[in-house]
Amino acid sequence: MFGVEQGAGPKVVIDFEPIGKRLYASLGQTVMQAAQGLELFEHGIGAPCGGKGLCARCLVRLVHGKLSPLTLTEERGLTKEQIEHGYRLACQAKVAGPCKLEIPVASLVGRQQLKVEGCQANVAPDWCLERYLVTGIRTPTIHYPHSLWQQIEKFLKEEYNQTDLQVNMNLLRRTDPAHYGNKVCVVVSGKEIVAVTAPGSDYEPLGVAVDLGTTKIAAFLVKLETGEVIASEGILNPQIAYGEDVMSRLAYAMESEENANHLAAAAVNGINQLIDMLILHHNFGIEQVRQAVIAANTAMHHLLLGLPVKQLAMSPYIPVTTAPVETTGDTIGLRLGCQAKVYIVPPAGGFVGGDHVTMIQASGIDRLNSVTLGIDIGTNTEIVLAVNGRMTSCSCASGPAFEGAHIYHGMRAVNGAISYVELLNNGQEVVWQTIGGEKPIGFCGSGIIDAVAGLIRCGIIVANGRLNPDHVRVRAESGKPAEFVVVPKHDNGLDVDIVITQKDIGEIQLAKAAIASGISLLLKTQGINEADIDKVIVAGAFGSFLRLESAIAVGMLPNLPLERFAQVGNAAGTGAIMTLLSSKERCRAETIARKVEHIELAVLPEFKREFAKALKFSVL
Amino acid sequence: MFGVEQGAGPKVVIDFEPIGKRLYASLGQTVMQAAQGLELFEHGIGAPCGGKGLCARCLVRLVHGKLSPLTLTEERGLTKEQIEHGYRLACQAKVAGPCKLEIPVASLVGRQQLKVEGCQANVAPDWCLERYLVTGIRTPTIHYPHSLWQQIEKFLKEEYNQTDLQVNMNLLRRTDPAHYGNKVCVVVSGKEIVAVTAPGSDYEPLGVAVDLGTTKIAAFLVKLETGEVIASEGILNPQIAYGEDVMSRLAYAMESEENANHLAAAAVNGINQLIDMLILHHNFGIEQVRQAVIAANTAMHHLLLGLPVKQLAMSPYIPVTTAPVETTGDTIGLRLGCQAKVYIVPPAGGFVGGDHVTMIQASGIDRLNSVTLGIDIGTNTEIVLAVNGRMTSCSCASGPAFEGAHIYHGMRAVNGAISYVELLNNGQEVVWQTIGGEKPIGFCGSGIIDAVAGLIRCGIIVANGRLNPDHVRVRAESGKPAEFVVVPKHDNGLDVDIVITQKDIGEIQLAKAAIASGISLLLKTQGINEADIDKVIVAGAFGSFLRLESAIAVGMLPNLPLERFAQVGNAAGTGAIMTLLSSKERCRAETIARKVEHIELAVLPEFKREFAKALKFSVL
Repeated sequence: MFGVEQGAGPKVVIDFEPIGKRLYASLGQTVMQAAQGLELFEHGIGAPCGGKGLCARCLVRLVHGKLSPLTLTEERGLTKEQIEHGYRLACQAKVAGPCKLEIPVASLVGRQQLKVEGCQANVAPDWCLERYLVTGIRTPTIHYPHSLWQQIEKFLKEEYNQTDLQVNMNLLRRTDPAHYGNKVCVVVSGKEIVAVTAPGSDYEPLGVAVDLGTTKIAAFLVKLETGEVIASEGILNPQIAYGEDVMSRLAYAMESEENANHLAAAAVNGINQLIDMLILHHNFGIEQVRQAVIAANTAMHHLLLGLPVKQLAMSPYIPVTTAPVETTGDTIGLRLGCQAKVYIVPPAGGFVGGDHVTMIQASGIDRLNSVTLGIDIGTNTEIVLAVNGRMTSCSCASGPAFEGAHIYHGMRAVNGAISYVELLNNGQEVVWQTIGGEKPIGFCGSGIIDAVAGLIRCGIIVANGRLNPDHVRVRAESGKPAEFVVVPKHDNGLDVDIVITQKDIGEIQLAKAAIASGISLLLKTQGINEADIDKVIVAGAFGSFLRLESAIAVGMLPNLPLERFAQVGNAAGTGAIMTLLSSKERCRAETIARKVEHIELAVLPEFKREFAKALKFSVL
Repeated sequence: MFGVEQGAGPKVVIDFEPIGKRLYASLGQTVMQAAQGLELFEHGIGAPCGGKGLCARCLVRLVHGKLSPLTLTEERGLTKEQIEHGYRLACQAKVAGPCKLEIPVASLVGRQQLKVEGCQANVAPDWCLERYLVTGIRTPTIHYPHSLWQQIEKFLKEEYNQTDLQVNMNLLRRTDPAHYGNKVCVVVSGKEIVAVTAPGSDYEPLGVAVDLGTTKIAAFLVKLETGEVIASEGILNPQIAYGEDVMSRLAYAMESEENANHLAAAAVNGINQLIDMLILHHNFGIEQVRQAVIAANTAMHHLLLGLPVKQLAMSPYIPVTTAPVETTGDTIGLRLGCQAKVYIVPPAGGFVGGDHVTMIQASGIDRLNSVTLGIDIGTNTEIVLAVNGRMTSCSCASGPAFEGAHIYHGMRAVNGAISYVELLNNGQEVVWQTIGGEKPIGFCGSGIIDAVAGLIRCGIIVANGRLNPDHVRVRAESGKPAEFVVVPKHDNGLDVDIVITQKDIGEIQLAKAAIASGISLLLKTQGINEADIDKVIVAGAFGSFLRLESAIAVGMLPNLPLERFAQVGNAAGTGAIMTLLSSKERCRAETIARKVEHIELAVLPEFKREFAKALKFSVL
């Protein structure tokens, strides 16, 4: 585990429900620290604010046992109702004895519906391994004192004129000559002998392509010679425990070298966890993994490699390097085959990272002779505008609202999350669907966008974003901000009505304004009108669950005919796969990284005005 | 620490004297296990037999406190006197409470007089680093958003046409752009940028050459560009804790993978400890170390790399590989500069290892057009006979007697060890010298050889090795084996007379017979007479403290005029340095490894007869 704070005090048992995990915590540790003992990337408590008690998102409920008294921060952050029900903030409450705690699904950092398939990688793999049949192998004797490897070396030299081959260290360590007959097949990659098999049984070199995002990590297991994608897995980025958005993580990393190491270890552990899942679930050997490619946004890139982040965190937001990094699993701590190589896709600059590069690559934006807009929606949303091959990109801090964060009843896209909402007869009726068809316990991103879009269409929201207090489903108790009831208490899995609050609408306004202003500023810099856009490519996990009509209605996406849009899923991951399989594609990625012109929105004079304009809703 | 057995019981404090180390041990742990908590390579308890209670060498004295009752093994292994004085065997006595234990110097695995300088490495280094002056570096701004590395990359490309350079990962991590002015010097090794310095202050790439022996590890810190040897250090091989000779370590490794890992870790830790000493004591940065070369005998080679040893441990004694191994510090756990390379000199075969190869290389035996005998004396003694360039080698198990092991008053060459002995008037008087001029507490190898040689010259030993019981200094109490008193109680630092026993003489006979029979068998196989030997090169630490006259007198070395002998010190280490500095020398080492014909003495029919003959002393 990473980042486990070693409490000095004696240890007590803590049971975490509903995940049914038991672990030992030290008296005096915060629940958050104790919970870091959980496999954070499987289960755990999210701390968007980095455990500072600001976001009140790390809710836990004391079922029985002993915690430290309620702090002022908690009294401020929790509702009376919550306090009555025994809810606490994990970052504030300290372990005062053995206890049983319930982590509400909504604050659980859990496995979730991750779109990782992405679009098809159309690329011809240029990985080629040589296979040599070696015959006449004998058991060594006093009169024939030659080991298996010596015999293989001799044979390859004499029969195939292959010299100066290096045997992979792990192969040397693991190979038991007794297991082989007088014939073997020797598999050579470049100048390295990577496998020895019995003739007939073949060896398949594998590669792992990783899309390392701020919120999610997706990984793909690929057969290097055929290009076949065997499996894909996605987990939440364990770094979430140190802050939900890029900036709070960079700030955490800058506090101390130890913090920076925590974050690097978190990312490495997350990727290793994915690799284990991919390998074990499919009965491959880790030794088959010869190569990994990682595409990450610039901040994740720096935090993974442990690069200094000061320059990146502050204006003018300069990455340490925009060169491709080639290293080994051993060097950065990834569990791959022995001596396996790791290639990290170069960022284009600022906050336009390698994942943006591979998104452009996979969706072919760099090769289109038209006006194309590429949008990779996430906690950070990267946008590229390509006009006949000239590409200009920017990054917008759209924030984690689409992940359900900062939304009163928001949650990640796990079972029970409302993913679809439709308002009927002027919003008097609401139709909804949840992931897994379970009783609703909150909204995930697409559900919120649907709801807000509906509220706009029905005129329940006015241009400035206010809720019409006179609507039948709008509650506006005096002094309290208005809220729209989507699912009443009796229909849902909580003990309160599920609502959209005035504040939630504000969050969506901020998020969509970030993206909309980014788009309009890109268009301006290239003198293009929205109507001239031939194609809009919407990438990213959220982007592919999103209903375009709703996104257009809230003003997040340009108001264009639907047929001009394409939702391509995790294109960044697909591009990483292409880079993994083909050296040509690797060069292409490096070219894209060099060619993309990167615009820092924050430094544009028009930025504030555009953003303010984009905050408005265009009510019908 | 490696190999620390975690006892289950509660912990108690143990003080170790005279080294003044305190550590916690679990009740029920043997003292040996507890002592593994000591930095074994600095201080610790030697266990030649691997802690099986056979060698009775792991003496400790209970000063006060509680140990388990005396075991039968201890009663057998210890003298009445020793038991009265509270001596115990560390591998038998278990911790029964807090206690203070004294580790007698003689059983202390300590730093010792190690001859590591060796002969001069006459080789032209072909390491060349490029240095580029990069000017006009600016602090990045919004309008000039380029990091230090981006500016360097651009400059190197435009001014020097250098492209595709990789920045060393650690350099990326550690470099703070703020520390540099507008001019820097960029140091490039191959395609890797290894350093950025302020112009003027230069960067010196360092290398470490390691001679990994069964008993000792010697390491040399070298400036790669100039070839200057900055420093050398030697320590005992920490693997000694798992067995003193090669065979008991191989046996230990074969017992389980865990054991094998203990041994690999022990060697790695030992080398890392040496590197730290070399680097820290001379105020260099570990990052300067770009390359390491390791020369080891075949068993150490296998145990270090964690290769399977079954084939090597049993007839016909086949190494897994005799190819050179090129890897990285990261892969095998050596603490070097980030991404630094490690080259392991190939063994010639069987028990003729890479250290023998580099010994031949450094002493130039492969280039002599004459009859040359090369002897590298150690726990295993390797011998090469070169006849006009044709080299035949063998390895003899001369055993650890020269290290003082298996000798009643034997000890390692640490302060207080008798290193020189001369017998006057027919052995009635004895003149001696100790290392460090301290009161004698035992013999190191050269002292024992001197003493036995003297006994032979004075006719106190007869051909079959018996001591003349009538001699004034020979004690032959009835029933007890005879012993020759070298230093009476009142003159020495022990509470008993320091003696040479009949058994000691037997040990020396075995050791010298191993070497002498090896020499004569090599001569036979090439049809050479002893007298035809033009040159005898005596290498190894012990070999350079040895007095040739004594070695010839005991029949260990051929009876030739002294001017034909050369004592070259640690030639194996010197060869490792040459291999580190020059790729030409690397090729030369590989050629030697291929050319050397390796003879397995044990399988020769005449072996037993030759050995029996060699046991005799040639009395005058």
